[in-house]
Amino acid sequence: MSLATEPSPRLSASSGPHPFDPVTPREIRLAVRVLENAFAGVKLRYNRIDIHEPIKHEVVPYIEAERLGQPLPRKPTRLLYSYFHRLDTLECCKALINADTASIVSTKVLPKTVQPPVDIDELAVIEEVCMKHPAVQAEIAKLNLPPGMAVCNDPWMYGTENQTETRRMFQCFMYMMEVDHPQNNHYSLPCKFSPVFDAFTHELIRMDYLPGGDGHSFTETQPWKPVKAVQYAHDLLDEPVRTDLRPYIVQQPEGPSFNVDGNFVYWQKWRFRVGFNNREGMVLYNVTYDNRSVFYRLSVSEMTVPYGDPRAPYHRKQAFDVGDVGFGLNANQLSLGCDCLGHIKYFDGYRADSKGNPVLLKNIICMHEQDNGIQHKHTNYRTNAATVVRNRQLVMQMICTVANYEYIFAYIFDQAANVELEVRATGILSTVPFDNEDGKTVRWGTNVGPGVMAPYHQHMFSFRVDPALDGFKNTVFYEDSVPLPEDDQNPYFVGYTTQQTVISKSSAADLDISRSRVFKIRNDSSINPITYKPVAYKLHAAPSQMLIQSKNSIGHQRAEFATRPVWVTKYRDEELYAAGEFTNQSHRADGVETWVKRNDPTENEDVVLWHTFGLTHNPRIEDFPVMPMERISVMLRPDGFFTKNPAVDVPQSSQAFNKSTLHPEAAAAASCCSGAGGSKAKLYKRLD
Amino acid sequence: MSLATEPSPRLSASSGPHPFDPVTPREIRLAVRVLENAFAGVKLRYNRIDIHEPIKHEVVPYIEAERLGQPLPRKPTRLLYSYFHRLDTLECCKALINADTASIVSTKVLPKTVQPPVDIDELAVIEEVCMKHPAVQAEIAKLNLPPGMAVCNDPWMYGTENQTETRRMFQCFMYMMEVDHPQNNHYSLPCKFSPVFDAFTHELIRMDYLPGGDGHSFTETQPWKPVKAVQYAHDLLDEPVRTDLRPYIVQQPEGPSFNVDGNFVYWQKWRFRVGFNNREGMVLYNVTYDNRSVFYRLSVSEMTVPYGDPRAPYHRKQAFDVGDVGFGLNANQLSLGCDCLGHIKYFDGYRADSKGNPVLLKNIICMHEQDNGIQHKHTNYRTNAATVVRNRQLVMQMICTVANYEYIFAYIFDQAANVELEVRATGILSTVPFDNEDGKTVRWGTNVGPGVMAPYHQHMFSFRVDPALDGFKNTVFYEDSVPLPEDDQNPYFVGYTTQQTVISKSSAADLDISRSRVFKIRNDSSINPITYKPVAYKLHAAPSQMLIQSKNSIGHQRAEFATRPVWVTKYRDEELYAAGEFTNQSHRADGVETWVKRNDPTENEDVVLWHTFGLTHNPRIEDFPVMPMERISVMLRPDGFFTKNPAVDVPQSSQAFNKSTLHPEAAAAASCCSGAGGSKAKLYKRLD
Repeated sequence: MSLATEPSPRLSASSGPHPFDPVTPREIRLAVRVLENAFAGVKLRYNRIDIHEPIKHEVVPYIEAERLGQPLPRKPTRLLYSYFHRLDTLECCKALINADTASIVSTKVLPKTVQPPVDIDELAVIEEVCMKHPAVQAEIAKLNLPPGMAVCNDPWMYGTENQTETRRMFQCFMYMMEVDHPQNNHYSLPCKFSPVFDAFTHELIRMDYLPGGDGHSFTETQPWKPVKAVQYAHDLLDEPVRTDLRPYIVQQPEGPSFNVDGNFVYWQKWRFRVGFNNREGMVLYNVTYDNRSVFYRLSVSEMTVPYGDPRAPYHRKQAFDVGDVGFGLNANQLSLGCDCLGHIKYFDGYRADSKGNPVLLKNIICMHEQDNGIQHKHTNYRTNAATVVRNRQLVMQMICTVANYEYIFAYIFDQAANVELEVRATGILSTVPFDNEDGKTVRWGTNVGPGVMAPYHQHMFSFRVDPALDGFKNTVFYEDSVPLPEDDQNPYFVGYTTQQTVISKSSAADLDISRSRVFKIRNDSSINPITYKPVAYKLHAAPSQMLIQSKNSIGHQRAEFATRPVWVTKYRDEELYAAGEFTNQSHRADGVETWVKRNDPTENEDVVLWHTFGLTHNPRIEDFPVMPMERISVMLRPDGFFTKNPAVDVPQSSQAFNKSTLHPEAAAAASCCSGAGGSKAKLYKRLD
Repeated sequence: MSLATEPSPRLSASSGPHPFDPVTPREIRLAVRVLENAFAGVKLRYNRIDIHEPIKHEVVPYIEAERLGQPLPRKPTRLLYSYFHRLDTLECCKALINADTASIVSTKVLPKTVQPPVDIDELAVIEEVCMKHPAVQAEIAKLNLPPGMAVCNDPWMYGTENQTETRRMFQCFMYMMEVDHPQNNHYSLPCKFSPVFDAFTHELIRMDYLPGGDGHSFTETQPWKPVKAVQYAHDLLDEPVRTDLRPYIVQQPEGPSFNVDGNFVYWQKWRFRVGFNNREGMVLYNVTYDNRSVFYRLSVSEMTVPYGDPRAPYHRKQAFDVGDVGFGLNANQLSLGCDCLGHIKYFDGYRADSKGNPVLLKNIICMHEQDNGIQHKHTNYRTNAATVVRNRQLVMQMICTVANYEYIFAYIFDQAANVELEVRATGILSTVPFDNEDGKTVRWGTNVGPGVMAPYHQHMFSFRVDPALDGFKNTVFYEDSVPLPEDDQNPYFVGYTTQQTVISKSSAADLDISRSRVFKIRNDSSINPITYKPVAYKLHAAPSQMLIQSKNSIGHQRAEFATRPVWVTKYRDEELYAAGEFTNQSHRADGVETWVKRNDPTENEDVVLWHTFGLTHNPRIEDFPVMPMERISVMLRPDGFFTKNPAVDVPQSSQAFNKSTLHPEAAAAASCCSGAGGSKAKLYKRLD
């Protein structure tokens, strides 16, 4: 697998993980040991044990030495962190641990109103507690279900209502299971009662009843009127599965064009390190092209999904899937031949369970190449000589299941130095019960089956770009395309030019399609010798409607990052998440909206660009029972970073290399019995 | 190749082409015969001989009978048209010919200010006339070129300036050729003189001189100061071609999933007919899904490229690549293994030369399948059972070279009933000379090499959608997502709803990202039994800056279609092109902006939706010497057209079907000599 042009990745002189490597099981055990020593005699429940982001000013000299092939300085401090509960006081603490010295750097008790994210063990417990609770059983009994039908529940983060709430709460949404099948679609049969539990005491806090009509009123639980669930599993479909899809096989007989060593990836002129943490999942570090620094770190830093159904308890449905749960924790174990096509390399991760045991997260990132059609082509019309270069890409993919819903994230690298973040939204809509016989509809949702409605909602992502274009001091600016004044210099009124606005202080900014506004990142001290302008990358943003919910809603205050499409901050360690560190049951955000207020200088500084984009998702019935993916793409594209197309040296596309197959015309002609196709073929032959 | 589930395409009882088939060589000869009879004794020069769009009210009963498997009615009249010049009077005429009866339906003499599009024969003649002209030779002599260097020219449509102009004019842009190679990039070495010729008299109308600095002034032609051209051909690169790209081969051992009979295509549940004409190139007709009508006709009806350089003669650079030349005429002859990957079917077309001879346009459309990653996925987190369905697509592709530039058009069908129009812009920038040594720049362009600058410009496309959702009477409306009022019904201020606005009269409309405005097409008489709303498709528009040039410019008046993103008209035969029938040297448009003024009723009518989208293309230096493609996508997506996800019956993705390859971990470990990768692998083994 070793490629001729492969550079030796610079490996640390000392043993142990690279500063950007994910947490190891040894480190999880080390953290537990350190904490158990520090809290001797106190029983601890671990919510998270994971790597802590390394301190940037320690990392930069290290990765620069790697890049330049120089002797490596001392490794940055390897830091871990843990959120945990003391089971004596139920206080939640955060500890920072130095893994090199196996010692605690700091511990602090979090305020009582702060809730750390959901952990996987507690979800399973709540689910069970709910099913066993007599009040829940009593409601189920009232449904009077026919034999073979059962009930299940999805515990949800409670969201926020009472700003002084200190209990850790879960709202269980209940569903009926029509059949005993591992892929039964219970989301098609939602129940109208929804208990709320305390995660520590396991007490039933309240039984909520869900409205059945288009208003706020609800009724006592009634016997279920049988309807058929809308199923997606092939075993459960009424109709036959299609039989006319022929295999499509990708072969790479000489192996892939990538090279991988641990979490270090080298492909074409790109190099980077694949990071992984429980919260964000896949993170890319120290992305370089042709050995020039491009990005220090790329991540999806947050996402929120506010629902537009105005009725209690749905007003609290606003998941923060990164901060409340974690894309890393929810990442799917990917499997060969299903989630990627071609020659696949998988990466693993680890998490800790509530007892502090390391748990392997197998195959949570996949890497493969793909062909994306033509990258560039030109035909000289005089000579008919054509140059065609295909667009080979390297895809880094992670798929996250957040209960009903799926997000597919991919960073896509190409040979022309572009990096794309592609998000695909799929999975199952979050549904609610609705008595929709007799033509009833609501103004904030779509009927997707008998007795079931999918409310309108938004998916708002925050893409965090920590740039390092030819160095770590960069400037963000935007460029508008505007007409030239109608004066002597523009006598025919056709001229236009660009206006640049530098973001010189940390702040938010807006897109403007009417001016084709483009946000760019540049390095003012690295000047392109031909354009005479600073080297730059531009952001192909995804223009999106921002948060619809009112400024007066709590949800709005929790997700201010989703109110503006672009934020620029001056880099600080610890400022990684757009809505702040703690989003679960949060009352207000503590993220970008707070940090920009420092009014930091951001020109020729270590800056971070945060791009909020998303979907206003007013469900189509076609999105049920499982949603054909909706794709959003954001791209980072060089703009004056090189002195010409960086892909001119990619080999020509040729039949010798690509081995395509010509459709047999004879066979096609044979398949048409008479008429147009056949007779025309003869006709042409006769005439030409 | 015959598939089990293949329906027999309904073929005409009578012989000859289907109403939607492209022109045949026999028909071209027939048209010539008919015209030569009608103009006996007059020498004619043929500008175009092509199919004329069939009359819709004649076609609809025919294709409905085909769809429903009923006996076919009489075929619609097969119409041809020709633009031609009488060489006695130099008048330009348009004739409409009935191919069934071999007779002329009508002829008319076009007004003297109207110019039909450029034809390929005349371009070659002008190119030669230019090179041989003594005044051009005199300018070339002044360049004092070293041995081996030559000069060539690209004739351009003249654009417009003088509204009473009746001469047919070409502006020749001159370039130096550094090397004798079929892929020499002359666009890197533009000359500063530019002669204008009369296409009929071959007279030099004027020698224009191009400004060398950033102002309007120019100087007499000076001896050339040698600089190196920026080349894209691999033979001519200074650097080596990459050697670390491994083959990526698509195999379809059981053949493709499509079936084709003449120009009729059947793939999965889609059926359509591939049309082709000299003007628009690829056109899709009678697109149905699962035997339900969806679209009558899809086409890229026009495109204009206004340049933002304010100086003469560049102010006239505003190509209309459909109306001035024709995407069909400029379509590339595609070749196996270069332009598509996998199992490829090609379609041919025909044009007439200026003498009326049919000319084969070989392989101008290619069809193939591609894998586009995951279409839908859901993992049941309790059982870990996952359903993954990959997104197999059918791609219909055409690539057009318009002198320096390339456009790649693809209609992409998927199994969830989506149709995407993808446009890729690539090729070589249109460049101008610029004395850019010493750090000089202009406000309206980018230096892309020594002595060469690429001016800012826009590419504005018009996508014409003639819908037929469950029938031919449809309604266009748009839907905005807006907050609910903050009242009793919305007590937590999170609710939002959609507002619908019906386009009840022919008119233009705007996009509005701040309200997530979505344009939809519906059939008010076909009600979805579950949503209780009319069946619909929605347009995923491409939000774009509209024309930047001033309302007071001639270019603006010629391209009013590019001033608004959405237009809705009531269908009329003959209204096919957004900027009108004649754009070459046009003074004002005669297209959508005119037709909407009729104020036609467009609710429950035969309506046409026109979507203008494009790029404000301020060149990057990375776009030179050949441009990495810039992709724009517009999609038509069902929205309540079905009662659930139409792709639920697509077979599961599985390794047995997809045959992927697992990256050999042993080999990867072997390639890392020591450190992170290797030691970690051991570590994990020990600990877990």
